[in-house]
Amino acid sequence: MGMQRTPLLMSRLIDRGAAVAPETEIVTATETGTRRQTFLETRNRAHQLAHALKDAGIGIGDRVGTFMWNGSRHLEAYHATAGMGAVLHTLNLRLSDHDLEYIINHGADRLIIVDADVLPLLERLAGRIPSVEKIVVATEDGFENWSTSVADAVEYEDFIVNRPREFEWPEIDENSPLGLCYTSGTTGNPKGVEYEHRAQYLHTLSICMADVMALSATDTICGIVPMFHAMGWGIPWSALMLGCKQVMPHRFMDPARLLRLIAEEGVTISAGVPTIWQGVQTVLEADPDAYDLRRLSRVTCGGSAPPPSLIRWYWDTLGVEMIQGWGLTETSPLATVSRRLMKHAHRELSIDAQFENVAKAGQLIPGLEVEIVDEAFRPLPHDGESSGEILVRGPWVCSEYYRNPQPERFRDDWLITGDVGRIDPEEYLIISDRSKDLVKSGGEWISSVDLENHLAALDGVAQACVVAQPHPKWDERPVALIVRAGDLDIGTEEIIAHCATRFAKWQLPDDVLFVDSIPLTSTGKMDKKTVRARLEEEGYRLPELREDGGW
Amino acid sequence: MGMQRTPLLMSRLIDRGAAVAPETEIVTATETGTRRQTFLETRNRAHQLAHALKDAGIGIGDRVGTFMWNGSRHLEAYHATAGMGAVLHTLNLRLSDHDLEYIINHGADRLIIVDADVLPLLERLAGRIPSVEKIVVATEDGFENWSTSVADAVEYEDFIVNRPREFEWPEIDENSPLGLCYTSGTTGNPKGVEYEHRAQYLHTLSICMADVMALSATDTICGIVPMFHAMGWGIPWSALMLGCKQVMPHRFMDPARLLRLIAEEGVTISAGVPTIWQGVQTVLEADPDAYDLRRLSRVTCGGSAPPPSLIRWYWDTLGVEMIQGWGLTETSPLATVSRRLMKHAHRELSIDAQFENVAKAGQLIPGLEVEIVDEAFRPLPHDGESSGEILVRGPWVCSEYYRNPQPERFRDDWLITGDVGRIDPEEYLIISDRSKDLVKSGGEWISSVDLENHLAALDGVAQACVVAQPHPKWDERPVALIVRAGDLDIGTEEIIAHCATRFAKWQLPDDVLFVDSIPLTSTGKMDKKTVRARLEEEGYRLPELREDGGW
Repeated sequence: MGMQRTPLLMSRLIDRGAAVAPETEIVTATETGTRRQTFLETRNRAHQLAHALKDAGIGIGDRVGTFMWNGSRHLEAYHATAGMGAVLHTLNLRLSDHDLEYIINHGADRLIIVDADVLPLLERLAGRIPSVEKIVVATEDGFENWSTSVADAVEYEDFIVNRPREFEWPEIDENSPLGLCYTSGTTGNPKGVEYEHRAQYLHTLSICMADVMALSATDTICGIVPMFHAMGWGIPWSALMLGCKQVMPHRFMDPARLLRLIAEEGVTISAGVPTIWQGVQTVLEADPDAYDLRRLSRVTCGGSAPPPSLIRWYWDTLGVEMIQGWGLTETSPLATVSRRLMKHAHRELSIDAQFENVAKAGQLIPGLEVEIVDEAFRPLPHDGESSGEILVRGPWVCSEYYRNPQPERFRDDWLITGDVGRIDPEEYLIISDRSKDLVKSGGEWISSVDLENHLAALDGVAQACVVAQPHPKWDERPVALIVRAGDLDIGTEEIIAHCATRFAKWQLPDDVLFVDSIPLTSTGKMDKKTVRARLEEEGYRLPELREDGGW
Repeated sequence: MGMQRTPLLMSRLIDRGAAVAPETEIVTATETGTRRQTFLETRNRAHQLAHALKDAGIGIGDRVGTFMWNGSRHLEAYHATAGMGAVLHTLNLRLSDHDLEYIINHGADRLIIVDADVLPLLERLAGRIPSVEKIVVATEDGFENWSTSVADAVEYEDFIVNRPREFEWPEIDENSPLGLCYTSGTTGNPKGVEYEHRAQYLHTLSICMADVMALSATDTICGIVPMFHAMGWGIPWSALMLGCKQVMPHRFMDPARLLRLIAEEGVTISAGVPTIWQGVQTVLEADPDAYDLRRLSRVTCGGSAPPPSLIRWYWDTLGVEMIQGWGLTETSPLATVSRRLMKHAHRELSIDAQFENVAKAGQLIPGLEVEIVDEAFRPLPHDGESSGEILVRGPWVCSEYYRNPQPERFRDDWLITGDVGRIDPEEYLIISDRSKDLVKSGGEWISSVDLENHLAALDGVAQACVVAQPHPKWDERPVALIVRAGDLDIGTEEIIAHCATRFAKWQLPDDVLFVDSIPLTSTGKMDKKTVRARLEEEGYRLPELREDGGW
């Protein structure tokens, strides 16, 4: 034995920020402005919270639910539970009652910390979540008066007040769980991914690498991606470790408010799903000089693929590098990133060629491995042409679902991601689609993502969503739903003509539907399951199947 | 079990560079210019070398010595041994015959790969290193004709030729050894530090973090620090993982040649000991416009503390950030780094204040812990004043010496570093001195490093070395050895007067000796052990102890 056997526990990282940068601020948006506290205060409050949880009976491995926005108290819950060895079960605020009830019961959460403004959502589950012994309510301005019948309840500040500011973090096995996050399934009940210390420790270091997010102590980071979604993409952990300034939007998610927060707090890096960045773009296009964004240098965009035109707009208009990331709840979550310059040879590329690369899902983060396979699980060549099911493995990739192993999602030590894609000769992963979102037409696959990206680049299109509709002969055919932008009254013929500039005739949408909005999933992605369900409800039929023969 | 149990093996990282950047170059300096090969060629040759080693009987855990300069074949040896699970024993080219013989025998190296130009040094050990069954000789221009009686010998190219280019790296325990490096003791025999996969894996990720060395695939790195010294500070591993361009100086270490290499290859980051950067400074001052260094952005400086004046010179003159790093062979090696901007609050500091921080040993790399203690091992406050023995622990810190545990160097899970220092309220570690290099005068300690740094900033001083000399009353008193710079014929009185601007009377050197050069250790540090030994040989006495009463 030559080296120390120091366990890779998050407790070895999370107190570091407060030690090196005690006065750096953590800013939470409020109704009237912001609420601010230092790293040292946050660390001390997290240790107090750990004492309070322990006194409430929470031990190593017990699940503590959070039903919260991004805010300093949610960060304290991350910090306290990871330090003490409890398991943070982040409950998605946008779930249906049915799914929320299911995951609380399946996780057997013993205590839930809840933001007062969303308490009414939890209240609807009263009497149906028997494992929950206690509710701790975090209040902000305007929500001081709350009541609940869910369980024994206490206000957050009363819960932690007067507790000791020093909790001696226990030494536990590095493979112990520290988090639980359920992924909304396409069929059946949500499935839980159990995050572990060692895996998150490695993920925390990795996203700080220069070629990943290059997160630095000198940054001011605004994580817009909810902390209830896949550990907030790991940002809370890295920020706690580094001691960089954090800006947290809480429930104030409209683009104009986000922009004001980013400008006023001097945010240097932010992270969110494409729909957020599309909303921000719309506000900025309407009023280009309203916000001082000179300090903003990069935004990480994940959850679903941002249209290349959006990536380019941020660079050309704002000088902001949009870093595309790909991953899943099952991959802790970051697996690949795409940056403007990722290789030595890229220094010589034209800007256009650099952005062709950024439009790909990216290069694997060191330590992970990826493969694409055909239906018999035979590896396909990395030629940029062959398309197959994407498999991924590595130290922060899920090996089974929580109390619901789902062996068909795993093969040897590989996770079967459910995404379909290609790998090009430069080892870029290119996502074609979610398996379930591919349009299967006449034995060939049509990528809804490719059509959407192409449509999003057309003037007059704010958002595009392509879904499959059943067809007796071809099996499925694509239909485009379009949200119009600005005053351009763009029509079906222009949409189809635009698609025809790039796609083959058989790949063109059979129909174009103009809509006011596209429904979003609880994690901000376009909810194609709901789109398809609504079309079915409405008795939608493809034009050539209608009695009038269509357009 | 929620996450995959992927072992943290270097074999999971080292092939990555060739996969993502197959055409990126690895450049080795030669007598007449450079020798160049791609990452893909290097990777294939490393796999061939692994086959050759296996066929020569080298198995998992067997020691393979390298007696080599920094060059592509040394990199192939790193790659092959780590992949196949053998242990790379990097032999220091500058050791005495006695120590070299000792470490080869103590490590029980079975095979040694040697650069032909240094074969004569190994030849002197013929008959005294019985464990060595085979010598593999790597030749460069001008050294094609070699012979040896050390052991069965073969030329490197003949050794690997026609072997398969694909070695299936075995899955071994992540705590298996992958390297062995001996540290030159002040007393007794050299002590071996056994590097392990998991520890080096974490170190490899860490030095790529934005706030550490921020090593990127887009960099061109020139590691001047020998690869026989503490895994070349981890640079070979990180470069293999990222696929960044590598430039390797081989035996051509004179400053003018290094500068030509850095300029011609467009080096962006380099790493070496202070004496290297002092030599480079001297050449540049003599001929400021001879080299185009516009692409060089940062140099990492470690091994011993660079004088603050040197750090500042690189910034003011070249716009190059000198990153100070502190670590030991025992810490794999990097433990702290000091950069110009390490915290959010530093953005507001003046340049002078930023460089006051850079002059400190730095902030701990995340995951490590440090403590300073008094003689009874009681922790001392982090007040910037209290000075004590520095303890360090963490996942890449040594827990014992190889086949020579030395329990007095460890306490609980802490390594007792042998360095003395302070920790300031910002958690900066400040090294006062090696314990053995402190001057103990009248019960107080005088830091030789502080005096040296102050002296190095004086015009007319190229290098300063302060050592203790015995004194019957005060125990020890400091003596300064000075290498003069340029044409300024600086004298003793100016030296002492300059020291008096900052130090108390009792801290001033008792004597100043003007010398042509300071002897260096095998790792390029000032060799104070030799300085003291020479003074003793010469019968040196402090001025007031001489019969003439001194100056």
